[in-house]
Amino acid sequence: MHFETFFRDRLDSLKDEGNYRVFHDLERKRGAFPRAMRHCGTGQRDVTVWCSNDYLGMGQHPKVIGAMHDALDRLGAGAGGTRNISGTTHAHVELEHELADLHGKEAALVFTSGYVSNWAALGTLASQIPGCIVFSDALNHASMIEGIRHSRAQKVIWKHNDLQDLEAKLAAAPADAPKLIAFESVYSMDGDIAPIKEICDIADRYGAMTYLDEVHAVGLYGPRGAGIAEREGLMDRLTVIEGTLGKAYGVVGGYIAASAALCDFVRSFSSGFIFTTALPPSVMAGAAASIRHLKSSQTERDLHQLRVQQLRDKLDAAGIPHMPNPSHIVPVMVGDPVKCKYISDLLLDDFGIYIQPINYPTVPKGTERLRITPSPVHSEADLDHLVASLGKLWAQCQLARLPMAAQ
Amino acid sequence: MHFETFFRDRLDSLKDEGNYRVFHDLERKRGAFPRAMRHCGTGQRDVTVWCSNDYLGMGQHPKVIGAMHDALDRLGAGAGGTRNISGTTHAHVELEHELADLHGKEAALVFTSGYVSNWAALGTLASQIPGCIVFSDALNHASMIEGIRHSRAQKVIWKHNDLQDLEAKLAAAPADAPKLIAFESVYSMDGDIAPIKEICDIADRYGAMTYLDEVHAVGLYGPRGAGIAEREGLMDRLTVIEGTLGKAYGVVGGYIAASAALCDFVRSFSSGFIFTTALPPSVMAGAAASIRHLKSSQTERDLHQLRVQQLRDKLDAAGIPHMPNPSHIVPVMVGDPVKCKYISDLLLDDFGIYIQPINYPTVPKGTERLRITPSPVHSEADLDHLVASLGKLWAQCQLARLPMAAQ
Repeated sequence: MHFETFFRDRLDSLKDEGNYRVFHDLERKRGAFPRAMRHCGTGQRDVTVWCSNDYLGMGQHPKVIGAMHDALDRLGAGAGGTRNISGTTHAHVELEHELADLHGKEAALVFTSGYVSNWAALGTLASQIPGCIVFSDALNHASMIEGIRHSRAQKVIWKHNDLQDLEAKLAAAPADAPKLIAFESVYSMDGDIAPIKEICDIADRYGAMTYLDEVHAVGLYGPRGAGIAEREGLMDRLTVIEGTLGKAYGVVGGYIAASAALCDFVRSFSSGFIFTTALPPSVMAGAAASIRHLKSSQTERDLHQLRVQQLRDKLDAAGIPHMPNPSHIVPVMVGDPVKCKYISDLLLDDFGIYIQPINYPTVPKGTERLRITPSPVHSEADLDHLVASLGKLWAQCQLARLPMAAQ
Repeated sequence: MHFETFFRDRLDSLKDEGNYRVFHDLERKRGAFPRAMRHCGTGQRDVTVWCSNDYLGMGQHPKVIGAMHDALDRLGAGAGGTRNISGTTHAHVELEHELADLHGKEAALVFTSGYVSNWAALGTLASQIPGCIVFSDALNHASMIEGIRHSRAQKVIWKHNDLQDLEAKLAAAPADAPKLIAFESVYSMDGDIAPIKEICDIADRYGAMTYLDEVHAVGLYGPRGAGIAEREGLMDRLTVIEGTLGKAYGVVGGYIAASAALCDFVRSFSSGFIFTTALPPSVMAGAAASIRHLKSSQTERDLHQLRVQQLRDKLDAAGIPHMPNPSHIVPVMVGDPVKCKYISDLLLDDFGIYIQPINYPTVPKGTERLRITPSPVHSEADLDHLVASLGKLWAQCQLARLPMAAQ
């Protein structure tokens, strides 16, 4: 077999389908984000980023940057080892206390990423609990799917956010089998929100554990920013709450919060937790500063929601179709991978607007979209420029418009 | 099933076996490392760290710290997205060029950790190449094992560093099946080194790809610090070289270096690469500074090797048994998990020396050890204190001593 030819052929197929990913080379400007400089073959161009998961701009917050500078100076660059072998720094311990407090749980455990936290925690729980059956929402994130797959436990997929289907599938499983329901609060690509209370009610009826991924909600919802479960007063009903330090908190890393015994169990038996270098202390310190700030400050959350509503209103006024949902994610639907990339390229080249096209396999074929994430660091003028630019392209590309709303 | 009871029972079993891990809560002192402050129930104690994988002390090198401060100020805290969705910063692009150059390859690809780079790259290659058979060294790291397992490709384990066994197993496989040989250069726990040239010769005879994990070698060996394959002039014979930014380079993260098509293939098809937030630009900048420094400076490598030799000589003189090997890893064998932890606790409490006990499952039962990693930032006085302390404990614990070497 000629391996190089094989790789190139597979890449050519991706290109033919319009699904080949081109990464844009960006320099975020600290203090001026969402402005960034884009490096490209022809030089450098200023752009406004509209697709970041740094939802609140905390990645440039002075408290976060300050805590990271301070930790670098006091503690150095890396952790120097796995958590077990010299890599547990005091910054890790403090962050885990902060996270346990955030979610009202006995303990928390930090992983190198949100992906790894899902993969490792679900993989460990489902493989180590004998006979465990995992009930997984059909739209769960790749990291949850891979974790469950990794566990080789029996997996039952229930229809997305469909309570009847979940209950029917739980009822059909052996009553004495250990059960784990895995789902998300805010789904990343459609921005819809799970009926958490009802899922917990069902879980109680069948003695199932609940595992809730709140990566697109932590920092953003609830009086202390702990997520949708906090907003709805449900945190104590979840067995595990999983979150990220890399989106609204603006840094990087993932975690679970749960009982002390569960966290200790995952800590002790998870290959993906044990055999990997711990994150740098400066990252831990930055994340802790971000969480602490958002526990007490509502300002960013309020302005975030305002900008989201303003964008929706302006899109409606311009007749640009977007998927309605109760979250901060604004998917503008295109429905074709080549057109989606074409619009994204024009936005970038002609209007200085960066919105990455979202194509298969991130979303199903035929639902290709521009996923827009307005933030408190976008101004109203930014919103107007974005919507005017989309309007021009929509006309130019002869994409379907909604009936123009009253102007 | 009562889940909490189940977790506690399993943790109790670990404790009974002496295999329950206790993480020490450390504050490294930037500029004074290997000194660190240990937080414990009774307060704070100064310790000297002897088990870090920050092998050269680059985690406190002024160029690394300076590059991270600069990137924080210019670019902010986090990358703000996956590599595809706004998370590719210019610092990532520059680091990948640096890594490709380091290993003499067309391209490189950075992952969130060394663990993820092995898991994702091996998992993607072995699952996507139809009918691929993976020939895996028996002592490969957990991350490689999990990646191969994840791929569900056929796996053939060959005896550790045993060329005859490898060749016999390749010969027994169908001639036309795609084959991938996965192995490490320096094995972490025993410190032995693979016969890379001979493995490449065998690979050529059977048309197999080669995948070499150099995480315990990059920065440390070869004229530019590219690892054992560079030292032996073999880099061009490896299909994939995998390395880490979290050990000798002192920061965090992992990577592969290979042909442009292979890197693009993994970039395009690997779930663990695609669906995860990119590492912070400051981490990328710090790693690039570290790599650049160690490409031209031999000072750290020379002093590292000197300290390793000095430690071995002093251990021999004191009759403390250690496993001979041609690398920088000095395993002092204890052979019992409870004794190993006991000695480690005494070293910490009575002598201010921190060496984490290495027990099952990191090493096979019966081979429990203290894994010592001397570095250029340890002084000769540090070495003397370490060996004298070990000597006292060896007497106290009545552990077997080698015949005392000539003093």
